[in-house]
Amino acid sequence: MSRTSWTTKRDEKTRRLKSVAHLMNGAILKNRDIVEALELLLQPGDRVVLEGDNQKQASFLSEALSAVSPSRVNKLHMIMSSISRPEHLDVFEKGIAEKIDFSFAGPQSLRVSQMIEDGTLKIGEIHTYLELYGRLFIDLIPNVALVAADKADRSGNLYTGPNTEETPAIIEATAFKDGIVIVQVNEIVDELPRIDIPGSWVDVVVEADKPYQLEALFTRDPKMITELHILIGMMTIRGVYEKHQVKSLNHGIGFNTAAIELLLPTYAEKLGLRGKIATNWVLNPHPTLIPAIESGWVETIHCFGGEVGMEQYVAARPDVFFTGRDGSLRSNRAFAQVAGQYAVDMFVGSTLQIDKNANSSTVVSGRLAGFGGAPNMGHDPKGRRHSSQAWLDMITSDDPLAKGRKLVVQTVETFQNGNTPVFVDSLDALEVAKQANLATAPVMIYGDDVTHVVTEEGIAYVYKAEGEEERRQALSAVAGVTPIGRASNAKIIQSLRERGVVAYPEDLGIQRTEARRSLLAAKNVKDLVEWSEGLYNPPAKFKNW
Amino acid sequence: MSRTSWTTKRDEKTRRLKSVAHLMNGAILKNRDIVEALELLLQPGDRVVLEGDNQKQASFLSEALSAVSPSRVNKLHMIMSSISRPEHLDVFEKGIAEKIDFSFAGPQSLRVSQMIEDGTLKIGEIHTYLELYGRLFIDLIPNVALVAADKADRSGNLYTGPNTEETPAIIEATAFKDGIVIVQVNEIVDELPRIDIPGSWVDVVVEADKPYQLEALFTRDPKMITELHILIGMMTIRGVYEKHQVKSLNHGIGFNTAAIELLLPTYAEKLGLRGKIATNWVLNPHPTLIPAIESGWVETIHCFGGEVGMEQYVAARPDVFFTGRDGSLRSNRAFAQVAGQYAVDMFVGSTLQIDKNANSSTVVSGRLAGFGGAPNMGHDPKGRRHSSQAWLDMITSDDPLAKGRKLVVQTVETFQNGNTPVFVDSLDALEVAKQANLATAPVMIYGDDVTHVVTEEGIAYVYKAEGEEERRQALSAVAGVTPIGRASNAKIIQSLRERGVVAYPEDLGIQRTEARRSLLAAKNVKDLVEWSEGLYNPPAKFKNW
Repeated sequence: MSRTSWTTKRDEKTRRLKSVAHLMNGAILKNRDIVEALELLLQPGDRVVLEGDNQKQASFLSEALSAVSPSRVNKLHMIMSSISRPEHLDVFEKGIAEKIDFSFAGPQSLRVSQMIEDGTLKIGEIHTYLELYGRLFIDLIPNVALVAADKADRSGNLYTGPNTEETPAIIEATAFKDGIVIVQVNEIVDELPRIDIPGSWVDVVVEADKPYQLEALFTRDPKMITELHILIGMMTIRGVYEKHQVKSLNHGIGFNTAAIELLLPTYAEKLGLRGKIATNWVLNPHPTLIPAIESGWVETIHCFGGEVGMEQYVAARPDVFFTGRDGSLRSNRAFAQVAGQYAVDMFVGSTLQIDKNANSSTVVSGRLAGFGGAPNMGHDPKGRRHSSQAWLDMITSDDPLAKGRKLVVQTVETFQNGNTPVFVDSLDALEVAKQANLATAPVMIYGDDVTHVVTEEGIAYVYKAEGEEERRQALSAVAGVTPIGRASNAKIIQSLRERGVVAYPEDLGIQRTEARRSLLAAKNVKDLVEWSEGLYNPPAKFKNW
Repeated sequence: MSRTSWTTKRDEKTRRLKSVAHLMNGAILKNRDIVEALELLLQPGDRVVLEGDNQKQASFLSEALSAVSPSRVNKLHMIMSSISRPEHLDVFEKGIAEKIDFSFAGPQSLRVSQMIEDGTLKIGEIHTYLELYGRLFIDLIPNVALVAADKADRSGNLYTGPNTEETPAIIEATAFKDGIVIVQVNEIVDELPRIDIPGSWVDVVVEADKPYQLEALFTRDPKMITELHILIGMMTIRGVYEKHQVKSLNHGIGFNTAAIELLLPTYAEKLGLRGKIATNWVLNPHPTLIPAIESGWVETIHCFGGEVGMEQYVAARPDVFFTGRDGSLRSNRAFAQVAGQYAVDMFVGSTLQIDKNANSSTVVSGRLAGFGGAPNMGHDPKGRRHSSQAWLDMITSDDPLAKGRKLVVQTVETFQNGNTPVFVDSLDALEVAKQANLATAPVMIYGDDVTHVVTEEGIAYVYKAEGEEERRQALSAVAGVTPIGRASNAKIIQSLRERGVVAYPEDLGIQRTEARRSLLAAKNVKDLVEWSEGLYNPPAKFKNW
């Protein structure tokens, strides 16, 4: 009754590794042999995970992959967190790969859309990060993983250091299902600062010709923060953080949240909120959080990944950050996403479009940008069972089975770049879904998950609205002169303000004229460096002094 | 501006480790010194994670902890997945610990309730597993971890082998925030079969006097499966698995799901469903799944943990299970929970009470049992963005933004043990919440997350019901002669059956008399051993031949 073999995957792995034995010295492959090795280790139709977190890219391996012969390696099914580099898409144009499952495509979103239209690229599904990692263990189990680490020793043990990110998740799914794990490292050394991944999970290590690509994605120059950002930030601090006593949270990467970070040690300090709000974070090491950390606002931060230039600062602040015995940051995207979903009380983010029901998306016409971590952080986790003050504060019903919910806060200006309305009748995502032939529209955060929308006009406490129509009215009350905003009704707004479903600055004790750049704890990157006592070392493009 | 020290946690760790230096030989502590070492390594008020998965217990360390002097170690805040052993609660009676955050308390649930009433035990919060792991990185960061592994080498590298479970998650949160990691191992060896945890994450290794406790929690003897279980199983296969073409799934541990597992190679095979349903699983290695695996039903299984007796069988089936280079199972509870939440289309479980709105709980009067993984698996993950046939099949609206949802299936007999009604007017959980002073009632799965309820009477497709009242009617239609069932209305039921909101066996083409034990692929544990070609080695208590 039993089938002939239960070890087909393992046998195939053994066969493939044997085929490159002549190129290997233990676990080490010479970098000039990488293309030949990939041609031997990959088979047509393989599922290949290529590491591209949003910051850290296995750039040597992605270049090598795009150099293999499509007559030998083709029809690959690529799995990637982030489509970030040109060769991530070149492999499709060259006929090496044909299908992709991914999470985020920021820098390449325009080209992704075009290639779908041309039929060069077949989309599997678009995911939030954690969802994609989950599928690596169920129905997207990889045949081959191409990942990046800082250093390896000669036994193949890996040091991923400050930028551990998603490397452990990818390797685990591959290594323990008889897939082949190929790692590019910046350096092969005799002794590692610490071991992040044991050598027995790794098959091939190759020293790259240059360090893996690493982008400073979470660095926001305070110089770019406007008084509008500051006004939104002040309202959010008073009307959300203070009102609900939010202690654990995650911030997106926009200027609105950067403004909040820089207002904590000044504006929020004057309100007497230190220790009462925003103490426990899940967040990349945002440079704009340095003043708050130095002022004693921040108890702990668990990081999804590192941030270029923050290495020394983080290493010098182990009471706040998670670090290893060697002193450097430990980031782990999978655990940070779990914590960001289940263990923090609030997500604060921004978006490009919001419809009348508070559905939002960053997928706009002609750009299939994907989601990243926002859908995971920006929803109420229905499996959550623990309570906290902020979470319980969201209860609006007197049902004895009522439970709290996560605060999901959208902070946006009513117009992008001053002229494109953020509040729209219908999301472009609907049109994009049709063009890309997606089964569902690529909505980033669904309206029924959103609790607060903050604009320069005020705050809509949408979680408090009774019924769909009142939700829409609350939203239109803060939507300014956008199409949605113009539909608002002064009398209804007045009643919503009285019931606390909408608050304008004056309702929160804020004067619009107070919102000045002088409130920012740091006005520019140089200030951040000074706050850090010289430990923060910003990338060249942020240095202009 | 900066505070005096940013390394208080690290300095304290160094101080504590120095205080036991005289007892240590490298990373190794002699087992007779464990109590003294714990008295030196622990401080009053510490947050201590004690590993108690539901199967695997750090039993040597929990016994040692309960032997420390409460005058030296007290006011501990315990964090435990599972309250399973008597000494897990003894430490509270002895004044060593005072507060607990946990997930599951099955075997000790009665005593937990009593101790809360007596004021001996202070409950923090009750969690689903993944939620608890998330909090280890945010607001429940441990000072000390007490965990269990199979083997260590003299450098402190660990082999957790088939029972990796939650060890990596606990160690990561502790080791990388300057906490102290103490590990009991069954054996210290010169060379490990593979490295699961690098030694640089581990502080103290102690060889236990006997192997850690390991329970065969997922073993269901086919002999105990009744014709009622089989009838429910047949209906579930036809009316849920086949109807919605469900390929990826998780099963709970009850007899209803064991029956389904044993019906796949017989009943479902006859229906021609092999390869069409139930191919990709997240599941402990259930012995009752052996016949389905051997018959080619199962493509892959990712495991939360191991199962006693299944080690050899799993090692011989690497095409199906995740295994390491040494050949033994790799389980990882954190990743399996992520996959179980986000990457599978269906959860099928059972419960002790269901109310008229389909809310359910295993917390019943006087027993604070907690949740385990059910809330995580048994809800619709709002962050999910990928689609599948089964998921899309749940769409009932024509809103262009409509998306699919996870199938959350409750399979229950209308009466427990033949006389306690499962369908009740009000959950005992409400009363328990009051007694234990919980902020919210301990509901395991909320009614609005449930899509199907299957009983021996039929299937309620509650996701299809229009409005709350119709949902209740659908539920009552399958609730038999329980108080809820007696409230049903024959005319409404008829209309619900016509619209496919309710299905009775005859609607599914099933005759009640077909439900016979002869349909089971294995009738007893011995049959399972035979199916496994002798590779499954059941624990003594299941061997009676």
